[in-house]
Formats: sequence, structure tokens, C-alpha cells
Amino acid sequence: MDMPVPTLELLDRFAAIVGEAHALRSEADLAPHLVENRGLYKGSSPMLLKPGSTEEVAAIMKLASETKTAIVPQTGNTGLVGGQTPRTGSSDIILSLERMNRIRDVDPVANVIVADGGAILADVQKAAEEVNRLFPLSLGSEGSCRIGGNLSTNAGGTAVLAYGNIRQLCLGLEVVLPTGEIWNGLRRLKKDNTGYDLRDLFIGAEGTLGVITGAVLKLFPRPIGHQVAFAGLNSPEDALKLFEKASNLCGTALTGFELMPRIGVEFTAKHIEGVRDPLSEPHPWYALIDISTSDNAATAETMIQSLLEQGFEAGLVQDAVIASSLAQQKALWHMRESMSDAQKPEGGSIKHDVSVPVSKIPSFMADAEKAVLAAIPGARICAFGHLGDGNIHYNISQPVGADKAEFIGRWREMNEIVHGIVLAAGGSISAEHGIGQLKRDELSHIRSPIEMELMYRIKRSFDPAGIMNPGKVVSLP
Amino acid sequence: MDMPVPTLELLDRFAAIVGEAHALRSEADLAPHLVENRGLYKGSSPMLLKPGSTEEVAAIMKLASETKTAIVPQTGNTGLVGGQTPRTGSSDIILSLERMNRIRDVDPVANVIVADGGAILADVQKAAEEVNRLFPLSLGSEGSCRIGGNLSTNAGGTAVLAYGNIRQLCLGLEVVLPTGEIWNGLRRLKKDNTGYDLRDLFIGAEGTLGVITGAVLKLFPRPIGHQVAFAGLNSPEDALKLFEKASNLCGTALTGFELMPRIGVEFTAKHIEGVRDPLSEPHPWYALIDISTSDNAATAETMIQSLLEQGFEAGLVQDAVIASSLAQQKALWHMRESMSDAQKPEGGSIKHDVSVPVSKIPSFMADAEKAVLAAIPGARICAFGHLGDGNIHYNISQPVGADKAEFIGRWREMNEIVHGIVLAAGGSISAEHGIGQLKRDELSHIRSPIEMELMYRIKRSFDPAGIMNPGKVVSLP
Repeated sequence: MDMPVPTLELLDRFAAIVGEAHALRSEADLAPHLVENRGLYKGSSPMLLKPGSTEEVAAIMKLASETKTAIVPQTGNTGLVGGQTPRTGSSDIILSLERMNRIRDVDPVANVIVADGGAILADVQKAAEEVNRLFPLSLGSEGSCRIGGNLSTNAGGTAVLAYGNIRQLCLGLEVVLPTGEIWNGLRRLKKDNTGYDLRDLFIGAEGTLGVITGAVLKLFPRPIGHQVAFAGLNSPEDALKLFEKASNLCGTALTGFELMPRIGVEFTAKHIEGVRDPLSEPHPWYALIDISTSDNAATAETMIQSLLEQGFEAGLVQDAVIASSLAQQKALWHMRESMSDAQKPEGGSIKHDVSVPVSKIPSFMADAEKAVLAAIPGARICAFGHLGDGNIHYNISQPVGADKAEFIGRWREMNEIVHGIVLAAGGSISAEHGIGQLKRDELSHIRSPIEMELMYRIKRSFDPAGIMNPGKVVSLP
Repeated sequence: MDMPVPTLELLDRFAAIVGEAHALRSEADLAPHLVENRGLYKGSSPMLLKPGSTEEVAAIMKLASETKTAIVPQTGNTGLVGGQTPRTGSSDIILSLERMNRIRDVDPVANVIVADGGAILADVQKAAEEVNRLFPLSLGSEGSCRIGGNLSTNAGGTAVLAYGNIRQLCLGLEVVLPTGEIWNGLRRLKKDNTGYDLRDLFIGAEGTLGVITGAVLKLFPRPIGHQVAFAGLNSPEDALKLFEKASNLCGTALTGFELMPRIGVEFTAKHIEGVRDPLSEPHPWYALIDISTSDNAATAETMIQSLLEQGFEAGLVQDAVIASSLAQQKALWHMRESMSDAQKPEGGSIKHDVSVPVSKIPSFMADAEKAVLAAIPGARICAFGHLGDGNIHYNISQPVGADKAEFIGRWREMNEIVHGIVLAAGGSISAEHGIGQLKRDELSHIRSPIEMELMYRIKRSFDPAGIMNPGKVVSLP
């Protein structure tokens, strides 16, 4: 759908809603908001608006709806699929929630926190800690990503195994609809079976059905016992067997089970400050195991020790360390969380964020490696991720000495190879990052016509003017 | 919307899809399917169809769509709001899933089970047990209710505290759409961020957006330690304080925290076989506390003892017993689960299934009691339920010796009183039973116009002919 270029007069009307001080127009001011972290997309936009309230967001959407002006919601701008980036060559207006960053309420008895859509994730975590509670969502970008974006992308991260994605952590939403109406669904209820589930429709819709301006989120008791171990393993098969032992032994106390390859440990040890290989000998694969208990600290200690003992006895664990301090725990997690960044100095990296049923991780790893190396001999596969969730960040670094641009030019071809194997295993081509612009066309190819049709119907009925983050997730036929 | 009465020829065409043997037309055969458990609704229908496959369901919906014939999906017929009952005076055709009752697959490594929409809940539980796993959904009607209905009503039950409603237990769905197309969303993935969340839209839609014919459900490790205690308390305030202690002490090992009033214990001891008051002295309130641990049995024992000790010391627990055998554990749960049935011999009972934020349970109980007794002096309030979820079954038995019909005639008036207090506390008028016919008109009054409008848009875009369980949840304007 083509939209008219906004006139200067129209831009002035938008600016008047938030006040000139909060309407950015200069190239320098706009520049950081037109690109995303990986540099895959560079968009254009005549203006960025920073509303200070839900009512201002509503006024913006109302005017946009009347004038058929495309609006791109943006929070922390940490998305990885171009969902928050204005379209290339477009006149999309960016709606930033950065001024709407308040914690509205914290209730440790009801175990809920209410936050603005622009609240930074780390601030929400901190507000929970201050009342001795845990908000479990945790991801690499938590210092800058914001709740509205986390919800719009159904963020996952490192605590999904025990607590689920943010979908499972959200009780209620406040959403400004594309037409400018406000849906107040800020309920604090654990149980509420009254009509269609609108909340979950907005969660994960990547800002294409409305702007999430507020949310009620769940809090949890803070764990008392916490243990982190790092184990050297021979294969993903062994990792899966160890994960099954861990699930049976620890139940919901198992709060993380991450798989990493040798090359990932080498990259981080080489490029990330403060990271070193915690084991004396190299191993082909590693597991990072995280256990949290809320009854007492001794339980976590007993669990991690029993698990490693069982793993040694069964020949699954070749070597292991248990972090002996909070600093060591953080260092182990830092290695895992910086594994993507550690690939940058190694040249081009083609990324995939896929999931398969947990039991199929080993066969997926074997099949994908074979196919990737057949296509690009010497490619360095750095596949790591949340084994317990079936979610692998299947990243491929260029062969040593290869031409970066040429390698990156094969992104689509590699996608087809890896996603083909994923789909054959009943997997997902986007486990946690979403669709955005990056996977929009692919989505329409891998989903059944009826599934796409249902999505189109929802999109059309919520956003009849087609102004809400157009060109993302679905492209109306 | 008025629908034409199906001609005999049309009924024959429907019957031909499933075969005459599976198309019931006689009054006697139809009778049990026209009423629901409470006797609040009595519908009419010319025919009940029992398809044997998803394809037959699709053929039925296709013909219904072409001929504008209303279809009411019915599984175990255990719903409590008339959602599964054909409309009074209607020619709605009942589509029963009882022949589609297979467990399609069980995978204990990936921790999933795939079942037909007509699979009985208890059979799913049993299939999980056979591979040493737990399917945690548990409710009074589990011997007859079926998975498609559980999903369509987003069933709750007694394990919600630790495991959530069935919404949290479902990974994927197969749905026959009102148009007869089949949506195959039978994914087995823990993480999948690819487009709009269609799954959660069908869950809880009470069969108004499509027929759930299959589902992928999550399995969990079976608990090793299990303890059940029954404690006498002075007030809902004390129950809330004890619940907070339990949450902090047990974390996710707290698998049940049910509140019951003295009168409920009296009713069950009097009317339900095998139930007796486990404590020697009467107490105004009781808590049933359930703890499950997956590491070892000793942890659960330590937890329940510590909790009761802390409760005694803080003056919250007046007396308590811990079940010393599996039989005793079952007996305690049986008392709780038969509390609604135990009201029947006491005459008329006006029911509410409400939720409020957990922290507001005590004030809600006090406010509601005052208002109810002011309206009907002598009414016997039997309010019990899942305190940990904020969900109270606020049931009111008639005064001793009152006229039953006259009392039941005040159903709506009592609803208005109780729901008014619930809504003022930010609560829900249907925590787990749904909307159906019973609360359909009320829903449109308590929800904002924009929320109703979004629901109408979804309904219209999924079911343009208006044939899918019409008159339930939403009534199109």
C-alpha cells in the first residue's frame, strides 16, 4: 500500500500533539533511529515523535488514521529483524515511547508490577528487586530494550525454561489502536475467562495491530539458592541426555540449560574482555546449567552436585566447574550472552534464530552442519542457544580469509538451507526474534494459505487504513 | 441472526457425511445433549452428528457454511454457562466430538502429547502417567470432560497455581474453521514467534471461532514428593497471610492453596459419602494446602512442616492435619471438589465464578457477605475456591426453609450485587467457567465499547456466515 508523503503542514500538526521539543526532524537526531543493530536495514523518516502520555499516543494515531500516515512504533530499537525500522525510502513517522518510561505501580502482595510501554527492562527488574521479588525476563539487551517492544516481539531470553516468554509473564495490556482508540485491558487477574483473548493477539504482533503503552506483569518470589555450572561435553546428543537428567532431577528449579560449541567459547575468550575458558582442556560442546531454588540455598547446591555426578557416571559430562561466587556465575553467563557479539571481529555472520522440538536438536545440528559445509566449505558454525527450549541461534561465521560481502550475499541461500531442515523437523524459522521485515516474505511461503488468510483478516479488521507499522510481519495482498 | 430451519433433505446431506449410524435424530438420543449439568438451559436441535475424523468435521462445516446452518460443538457437555447447549427453540445442529477420542502421539523426550479434540481429560492424564510424566490439568469433571472443550473454555481447575490454565499447557492446535477449512497449527515448539497468535485466539473462544479437533499439550516431570495439609483458620485475612508465607517458602512447589468456609465443610460432611471433618473443633475458615516437589520426597515433607510451624507461630493456623497416606490426601481433595455438589441437597444455590487480585480476597469476601445478607437475610454463603489464583466460587445457598423457586428467581439480582463488588475491585465475572449464554449480555455491559467492537470484528472475520455456535460469548449487533 502506498501512502501519501506527509506535507509540512501535516508534520506540524503531529508535532503540535507532543510539543515541538519532542518532535525530532533533523537528520542528526533521526539518524540513530533509522538503523538497527545489525545494520541490515536503513530506513527513512521525516519525523520522530516522543509522546508523553497514552492520550498523546492516541491523538497521534487518530490523526495518522485520518490522514493515512504510516506510523512505526519504536522502543529500545534493539530488535533483530527490522520490525522497528521505518521502511527504506518511506515517509513513515517514528513513534518513540522513550519518554513513557515510568513504573506505574508495584504490588508485592498481588505479585504484579504495572509499567509504561517505554519502561526499560532493567528498570522493571530493579523495581521488582526493591520489593524482594523477581521479574524473570532477562536478555542481553536488558539495559536498553523496553517493555512495549519486549511484549510486541514476545521476547524470550535466558529464563524461558522456567518462566516462559514474556507472553507468560503478562496479565494485562493498555493498547492504543490504529484508529486512536485506547483499549484499557490493564487487568491484574490470574484467571479471567471473559471473551476472546485480545491480550495475546497484541503480544508478538510487532506493533502492527496497535501500540502497547502499558502492561501488567507478573512478579515471582526471588530465588534463594542459585547455582551455575559449566560442563564440557562430547556432542549435542550427550547434551540432550544431560538435559533430560536435569529436568527430572530439578523440575522447575532448572532455570537455564544453554548449549555452546567449542568455537563459540574460543571466539568469546579471544574477543570479549574478561572471558576465559573455565576448563583446562577443550571439549567439542559445552552446557551452561543454571539452577534456582526458592526454598533454601542448600537444595540448589545438592541438585547441581547430584546432576554433575550423574552426568560423570553416565559418561555424559567430560569435565565441569561449578561457579563458586556471584562473580563467577556472572562471568559464565557473560560468556554465553556475548557469543553473538564475539562473532563480529571474525567477519561476516549469517544468523538464524530457529527452534525444533527439543528431542530433535541433535539430528537438526548434524543435518544442518552437513548441508552448510557442503554449500560453503570452511564456514565456521557457531550454533548456540537455549537447548531446553529447543531454540538454537544457528549462526554461521565466514570462512577465514573469505570476502565478507560475498559471504553475506549468500544470506538468503543459507537461510533456505537451514530453514528447510528446520521446517522438515516441524520447527520454527523465528523462535524468538520475530518476523519484522527480515522474514516477512518467507513467512507467507512457509505458512498455509488459510493461516496467512486468518492473519490478513485480523490485520485488516484492526487496521483498516493499513497505517500501523506497515510492511512488517504480514504484507496485505 | 435468524437461521433457516434445516429441511429434511439438508439433514440427510449432513447425515451422509458421517453415516446414518453416527447421526442421531430421535428425541431420546438427543435429550441428554440438550441440557447442561445445572439445568439452567434447555435447548432444541433436530440432529446430533458424530464425525469420526477432522475431514468429516471440515465437510460438516463446509456444508453448514454454504447452507447457513448453525452448528454447536459439544464435547463432554460439562460446561457451566450454557456454551455447549443448543439455543432454546433453535434448529442448531450439535457436532459431538465423542468419537474423535484418540491419543495421537506421546513423546516423553520432547514432553508433549497430541490428542484429538474429543479425548477425555482423564485418558490424557493416564497416557502421560504411562510414560512417567504429568499432564497437570485437573478438575472435578475430568472423567467426562474432553480436551476440545477444556481448550475452548480455557479450563482452570486445581493445579492452576503451579501450572496455569490449559492455555499455558497448549503448544499447538488443529482447528476446523467455520468455513470448513482446516488450520493445522499442531506445532510442538516451546518457542515460535512467527506472526499473530492464532492459537490463543481459539483457546477460550467457546467454539464460536472454530472447532478444536486436535491439540499438542505439554507434559511435565511427575512430582516425587507430595504433601497435603488441612488447616483451620480464623479469617480470609489469615488465609492470605498464610498463602504469602507458603509462596515464599515453597515457590513453584506450592501446587494448591484452596480456601473453604465452615459451612462448606459442614455441607460436605453431611451430604457427601466418605467425607468427615478432619479436625476435632470447628473453625470459621479452612485452607487446603498442596505441595509437590520433583527433586525428592523429603523436601515436600520439610516444606509442609515448616509452613505449618510458621503458621502456628504467627497465630494464623489454629489447628491442622497433614494427610499421612495417599488415601487421606485424596479424601481431603474430595471434600474440596464435592463442595458444589454438597450444596444441592440444601436447596437452591445461586453461583458466581469470580476472580479478584489475590490481595483483595479478604475485602471482597467481607463486602460481598455484607451486601448479600442485606438483600437476603439468612442466605447461606458457601464461598470457596482457589485463593492462590484469586478465584472464588461465590455460591449462595438459600435460607433454611425458603422457597427454592423464589430464591433462584433472584439469581440476576444477586449477580448484580456480587459482580458489582467484583468489578469495583478490578475483578472478573467469569474466572474460569467462561461466558456462554449465561453471561453474554452482562459481558457487553461491563466491557468497554471498543473491547466489544474488537471481539465483534474478530467474530465477523472468522465466521462471516455467523453459523459457529451462535448466541454464545458475543451477540453480533
